[in-house]
Amino acid sequence: MTFCPDDLQPKHFLWDFADGVATITLNRPERKNPLTFESYDELRATFWNLDNCRQVKAIVITGAGGNFCSGGDVHEIIGPLTKMDEAGLLRFTRMTGDLVRAMRACPQPIIAAVEGVCAGAGAIIAMSSDLRLASPEAKAAFLFTRVGLSGADMGACAILPRLIGHGRAAELLFTGRSMTADEGFAWGFWNRLTPNVLADAQALARDLAKGPNIAHAVTKKQLDAEWHVSIETAIEMEARAQAHCMQTKDFKRAYEAFAAKQKPEFKGD
Amino acid sequence: MTFCPDDLQPKHFLWDFADGVATITLNRPERKNPLTFESYDELRATFWNLDNCRQVKAIVITGAGGNFCSGGDVHEIIGPLTKMDEAGLLRFTRMTGDLVRAMRACPQPIIAAVEGVCAGAGAIIAMSSDLRLASPEAKAAFLFTRVGLSGADMGACAILPRLIGHGRAAELLFTGRSMTADEGFAWGFWNRLTPNVLADAQALARDLAKGPNIAHAVTKKQLDAEWHVSIETAIEMEARAQAHCMQTKDFKRAYEAFAAKQKPEFKGD
Amino acid sequence: MTFCPDDLQPKHFLWDFADGVATITLNRPERKNPLTFESYDELRATFWNLDNCRQVKAIVITGAGGNFCSGGDVHEIIGPLTKMDEAGLLRFTRMTGDLVRAMRACPQPIIAAVEGVCAGAGAIIAMSSDLRLASPEAKAAFLFTRVGLSGADMGACAILPRLIGHGRAAELLFTGRSMTADEGFAWGFWNRLTPNVLADAQALARDLAKGPNIAHAVTKKQLDAEWHVSIETAIEMEARAQAHCMQTKDFKRAYEAFAAKQKPEFKGD
Repeated sequence: MTFCPDDLQPKHFLWDFADGVATITLNRPERKNPLTFESYDELRATFWNLDNCRQVKAIVITGAGGNFCSGGDVHEIIGPLTKMDEAGLLRFTRMTGDLVRAMRACPQPIIAAVEGVCAGAGAIIAMSSDLRLASPEAKAAFLFTRVGLSGADMGACAILPRLIGHGRAAELLFTGRSMTADEGFAWGFWNRLTPNVLADAQALARDLAKGPNIAHAVTKKQLDAEWHVSIETAIEMEARAQAHCMQTKDFKRAYEAFAAKQKPEFKGD
Repeated sequence: MTFCPDDLQPKHFLWDFADGVATITLNRPERKNPLTFESYDELRATFWNLDNCRQVKAIVITGAGGNFCSGGDVHEIIGPLTKMDEAGLLRFTRMTGDLVRAMRACPQPIIAAVEGVCAGAGAIIAMSSDLRLASPEAKAAFLFTRVGLSGADMGACAILPRLIGHGRAAELLFTGRSMTADEGFAWGFWNRLTPNVLADAQALARDLAKGPNIAHAVTKKQLDAEWHVSIETAIEMEARAQAHCMQTKDFKRAYEAFAAKQKPEFKGD
Repeated sequence: MTFCPDDLQPKHFLWDFADGVATITLNRPERKNPLTFESYDELRATFWNLDNCRQVKAIVITGAGGNFCSGGDVHEIIGPLTKMDEAGLLRFTRMTGDLVRAMRACPQPIIAAVEGVCAGAGAIIAMSSDLRLASPEAKAAFLFTRVGLSGADMGACAILPRLIGHGRAAELLFTGRSMTADEGFAWGFWNRLTPNVLADAQALARDLAKGPNIAHAVTKKQLDAEWHVSIETAIEMEARAQAHCMQTKDFKRAYEAFAAKQKPEFKGD
């Protein structure tokens, strides 16, 4: 089953598609774009469907009204969770974790465009993207400890240390304190600080959308797949993956353009 | 078998307990607090016992007299090792490694408060803590190479790269050179530089001691447990771990405090 | 079978040996020292042979004429690859990956001395060294995406994130952009920026060549071997490895020198 971008008509966030780039906008600005059970579930379904929606070549995820996302809504999510039994809680934590799995599994690079508040599950969504741009006032907080929970939320104990180092990740997860934009840039969480965060993220996404798309999907997959294997295994995985990319027409196009001293135009096959 | 803090009456270092925080002070200041066979062994026994001493909610480890720890004593440890047979050497290296295992296995967050010299096994103890505060003049040196040994000491080749990156870790372990406090902060080894290192470390420990303690123990455990598993496995591990935390009373307390616009008071259950 | 340095008479790069240090110089300066099928193959054979050439205690790899290496030659490598079948491509990617395996498998520390252009497979060779020195104008680019390929080249998706963090590695591999020397130093890719890159690299190599050589080989091996194992396994591996180093004469020499307040002279046994 395949999808075209118009098939995806989400109810709980905005959806825009242009130039091969899908933009997802969390859109409850009056409350800094919190997540609900419904928006969590629709987000993960959307990312899973993007695996079969090859017109979309890159994805931007952002928030409306000057904030990215304030995380799970206190009244709509945290309250109900305190009344749930063990099986229900596990269904919930597996569902939220499945959003991260979907974001990592879809072949398109995902760019988070972050202004203002980026907290809890919002910080997780930024963390789980491939690239992250932030405004100079953005504040990211993995604040689970503030609500009595652990930092082991949706993969944070695995992914955050790989982005910013184990010691800094430990501090953020144990204390729940905000990471300033400057800290996040110095530590490698943010790839760029810019006042024009959405425009810059979309421009970068359009560049990536131009391809080589098969190769980008391989880069994304291997960056995750190799972090727990031996160096020997990693090198063999890459030998196979790159030999596969060398059989694409885009590889040939690049060579021919280069030989003709032109810029290559990739076509995604 | 459980312990209360008063049961622990170590002979080879100072022990203090207040406000849920145990402070361990290496105390041979005239020689910059080196370790001996006896103090190594008592340290590891203490950290293993802390697993069963739930009144202790957080731990600070520091050194007396303006230095943290100069490592294994040259006369009391290195000399005897040069005369030991293979079985004896392996007993020794397993015993020292077991100190790191005990530090990582106890549920309490450990904060190293480091001034001055932090060398050899002293640098390892700092590295194996959960958080690290240092004075602006602190010098950490993984100087094993200087005594003819490898950087593969008590887990350094596994842990140090995760804190500061593989390339910087390689330099420190191959050359044995000191890492300045500024380097260590820029690289993510130190979480904070402060002239009031012990007071600040104890204040931070008191904050962590307030909980949520079950959640902190989960954060600590998962930060280590996930570094060699796939992202899929990590996400599943976290779904289970966080669902467990959602069944604590501290989670409910946090929600109720938040709904009442108050600061939560955690109680550790 | 063992080799002495004079046995190695490479045809496709320069070879120099002095004071225990072998210097390999990529030497097609008119084209910024690109690699060919032949030089790739000879490089990997040389690194594999160094495993059996114990007179060489440390290695410097550099490029002639103010540049390090421009990567695989467009006409001599990329062109032919576009005409190759799947089996031939896999033979090629395995051969290039085998160069990295050989660099990681040889017991000697390898120092990359990098000026100017360091691109494609050239950036991989720098990345796969143990330590990296660069001139302030050096530019490293993992530009595979520019020729239609993935970042999964010769182990880059495994090694680069461990050096500079997962997020920065993703940016470099997805965009193919150059990393400036200042970025590379701030991110932990370069260990030092210096205008005298070759002289400084050789001085550092001479220091490492003085030993302890058995211990250096253990440090190198364990830094790679432990990145995908549990902390428990890592600590046990190090207990065994360090107990082995404690049986060397160099360990005893260090103790005796220290006791006599002298600088130890290591001899490699």
